[in-house]
Amino acid sequence: MLITIDRNHPEPLYIQIKNRLRALIESGSLPPGYCLPPERKLAESLGVNRTTVLNAYRDLKSEGFLSSHVGQGTVVCRPVSMPDIEASAPLPLSWRHVYNQNADAYSSDITREILAIAGQKEMISFAAGIAIPELNPIAEIQEIWKCINEKYGASIFHHVPVEGLAALRQSICTLSGSRGIRAAEAETMILSGSQQGLDLLARLFVSPGDTVIMEEPSFFCARQIFEGCGARIIGIPLDETGMNLSMLESVLKRLKPKFIYTIPTFHNPTGAVMSLQNRQELLRLAYRYHLPIVEDDAYGELRYDGEQVPSLKALDNHGYVIYLSTFSKVLFMGLRIGWLHAPAQVIQKLTSVKQLSDLHTNSLAQYILDAFIRNKYYERHVRRVLAANKERRDIMHEALVRYAPKDIPLKWAVPQGGLYFWLQLPDSVPMARFYEESVRNGVVFVPDRVCCLEEPLGNHIRLNFTYPAADRISEGVRKLMEALEKVYRESEHAICTPGGYAPIL
Amino acid sequence: MLITIDRNHPEPLYIQIKNRLRALIESGSLPPGYCLPPERKLAESLGVNRTTVLNAYRDLKSEGFLSSHVGQGTVVCRPVSMPDIEASAPLPLSWRHVYNQNADAYSSDITREILAIAGQKEMISFAAGIAIPELNPIAEIQEIWKCINEKYGASIFHHVPVEGLAALRQSICTLSGSRGIRAAEAETMILSGSQQGLDLLARLFVSPGDTVIMEEPSFFCARQIFEGCGARIIGIPLDETGMNLSMLESVLKRLKPKFIYTIPTFHNPTGAVMSLQNRQELLRLAYRYHLPIVEDDAYGELRYDGEQVPSLKALDNHGYVIYLSTFSKVLFMGLRIGWLHAPAQVIQKLTSVKQLSDLHTNSLAQYILDAFIRNKYYERHVRRVLAANKERRDIMHEALVRYAPKDIPLKWAVPQGGLYFWLQLPDSVPMARFYEESVRNGVVFVPDRVCCLEEPLGNHIRLNFTYPAADRISEGVRKLMEALEKVYRESEHAICTPGGYAPIL
Repeated sequence: MLITIDRNHPEPLYIQIKNRLRALIESGSLPPGYCLPPERKLAESLGVNRTTVLNAYRDLKSEGFLSSHVGQGTVVCRPVSMPDIEASAPLPLSWRHVYNQNADAYSSDITREILAIAGQKEMISFAAGIAIPELNPIAEIQEIWKCINEKYGASIFHHVPVEGLAALRQSICTLSGSRGIRAAEAETMILSGSQQGLDLLARLFVSPGDTVIMEEPSFFCARQIFEGCGARIIGIPLDETGMNLSMLESVLKRLKPKFIYTIPTFHNPTGAVMSLQNRQELLRLAYRYHLPIVEDDAYGELRYDGEQVPSLKALDNHGYVIYLSTFSKVLFMGLRIGWLHAPAQVIQKLTSVKQLSDLHTNSLAQYILDAFIRNKYYERHVRRVLAANKERRDIMHEALVRYAPKDIPLKWAVPQGGLYFWLQLPDSVPMARFYEESVRNGVVFVPDRVCCLEEPLGNHIRLNFTYPAADRISEGVRKLMEALEKVYRESEHAICTPGGYAPIL
Repeated sequence: MLITIDRNHPEPLYIQIKNRLRALIESGSLPPGYCLPPERKLAESLGVNRTTVLNAYRDLKSEGFLSSHVGQGTVVCRPVSMPDIEASAPLPLSWRHVYNQNADAYSSDITREILAIAGQKEMISFAAGIAIPELNPIAEIQEIWKCINEKYGASIFHHVPVEGLAALRQSICTLSGSRGIRAAEAETMILSGSQQGLDLLARLFVSPGDTVIMEEPSFFCARQIFEGCGARIIGIPLDETGMNLSMLESVLKRLKPKFIYTIPTFHNPTGAVMSLQNRQELLRLAYRYHLPIVEDDAYGELRYDGEQVPSLKALDNHGYVIYLSTFSKVLFMGLRIGWLHAPAQVIQKLTSVKQLSDLHTNSLAQYILDAFIRNKYYERHVRRVLAANKERRDIMHEALVRYAPKDIPLKWAVPQGGLYFWLQLPDSVPMARFYEESVRNGVVFVPDRVCCLEEPLGNHIRLNFTYPAADRISEGVRKLMEALEKVYRESEHAICTPGGYAPIL
């Protein structure tokens, strides 16, 4: 706001200020609703007494140019002389008619809904897919902060290349090397979370009507992203050794999908680990049918026992596999840093898409993570995370054994890694009722339908064991089982009516 | 990698290790290409002598299971007994056939090209749209870091809501209030850079074939984003008072565009400021034709002299204007934080799109910016930026006056704000030749065709005055004018040939 005063002018200062403000209001430079600075502040900046400004404001109020309300400050009113741009009283805009045909794909807000419930104070959440929050390495981060400040100065706030900070890309190549993946810097791209990778791939590959193959069930956000680009999704059922490959091949004989999306290691939500043999067979199919594979390896590093199985990317020597991973399941989930390995030409194309999407990923976060890896804090932190996750997994398993009602047949495998139990309930348990009762009892989880394209087979729930504090896991399982027992008894009564089972969901 | 040894077993330890490694390689658990840990490291983790591991590795090498090269470490070879997944020697994948029909819209890499040239050591860049890099407030940031660590602890690395940290949204509402915009928290969304806002809006509003209206010329990334969603763009020419509204109305009578995208204040690239009268008339047209306006206010805060004109959003009382702004033109450009004001129902829908795009914006950056605003550092910093920008603008103006060749008619206005001069060259200057000669002379700029849909009218270049250091601006302008003079003389000779002008670009 430009106000100049002339101390040598015969006009009193407050009049000068008042006239100037009135001119600005009349010209529309200070529009209706504009908040003027507090008197004291304007007085300071003009080098006049507070009373001078007070007098100017008071006059303008009495002339109807300004109004003030407690807590709102001094606000410009609509002056009578201002041309009325609303002479014809416009209709409210119908935004629904502005949205495009994909807008409905953006309406499923299950994630937000579950997170909102999970965020309630007393709620015990088994619903999130979030790493142990207490393990964020605060001491190391202070070291890192010092170190990047000394080394890079203000650069940590400057722009970095679209495809990511070169140093971090190199660090990640080394990390991937230790997972058996050979990837050069040019085959590596930093993402604003690995979910951004799914989004960029969908935008580059999928046209409306294109087919995409996924496991059934699978990661629900991936499905929403593909559908948001107009993809037709085909779900291939999976067992504990991975997706049913003969079903996959029969699909590939009939259709030409754009790609297969798979989570081969500690599959979300089932926890399945695709066997080595199935991995090799899947690659053979990809080669035979010229089909890219998008491998989502968000959980592969989180193995607590059993033997490592190499990733599809590590087994692929022909550049058919696009590999996605993330730091968010281990630490700093809020920094939103993931990465992608793909043939250099695909990285180049994805870079053009990313450039339009968010220009580049937050620089500061990239400097922090790079230093974290180079200082060997990352390795050490992963070991801590593995130990802590394993402990919580065991607590949940023991609590399930302890609290599972004896006469209700439940099935689960102890996951060798990842973040979830996949608990099978009797078919007779009405899922919607169970979910409702469980939330009422203070525990939230992910019901299978959220992860499924079709009607769910069986009757499962996904239970995360890393987000709730160790001492609340048992309590949560106990409450969950109380809810289950209650709903199960209700449904037993329901079964007694002739006609037998009536699955509600 | 799981290796267990049994010290009580009669077999020597190195044989145990060797057999175990071989089994893992044969089963495929350690795939070809897998990097084994260095001998010393494995020895440490097993609690054996380094020689023990050395012997095991040596044997496996001689048997063809491992190989090692300097700098590469010890790597798993393809064992003969491993099932060959490549029996049928797969064809390389033709990625071009996997890309969708929009992929070509992602091929224009002018921004990256210009940034790459600008990044060369000795190059003086007038091409970027970047704030003064030296002004990033390093001292304040140390304060902020301490303050958010004490106040929030590890939360600064945790997830935050998709629509943004509540505290930052409130801070931004206050900031917008001081610009005359009344927006509630529910009408406010944090973006990963304001460019993400354009992307989310395009994805929510634009279907292939839909019309979008922009100024001609305009911000080239916005055009690319809209075209990436299949939009048909109509460009409305503008003069120094904003877009030609009678041309706009004649378009609106014939077509139903999805929205108008405009940069009313310190327009990019021309620097034009839409007059108050034109703003009111534009709103009238929007109301009459039920047309949303997307107002990009990246530069509005950067006014060095002249009078503030209220934003369209401040003038709009009917929720027709979606308002975008950013911190990146003032500070912390690498943090990628922008924001958007829109009716709450639109924010809700955009939140669903954003959730699939990057889940949420980097938390740490949001905590930093919120504290920066609350501690009043932001206000103070803006004042510093305004003073420094103004100084550089004046240096560039003076250099243009000093070095412009006397007989070459050049036209420019001194911009009252923003980051650019928009310099008009004689029509006879062949732009492509001039660009080439200027880069050869060590100066890069943005030629008008980059910002234009159609053949450019006139012959302009965009010169940024904030990114180059103050003492290099004069030097850059001198070199630019040398290049211009050289090319102009060449073209004078060309005009002498019968037939006259032959515009090359």
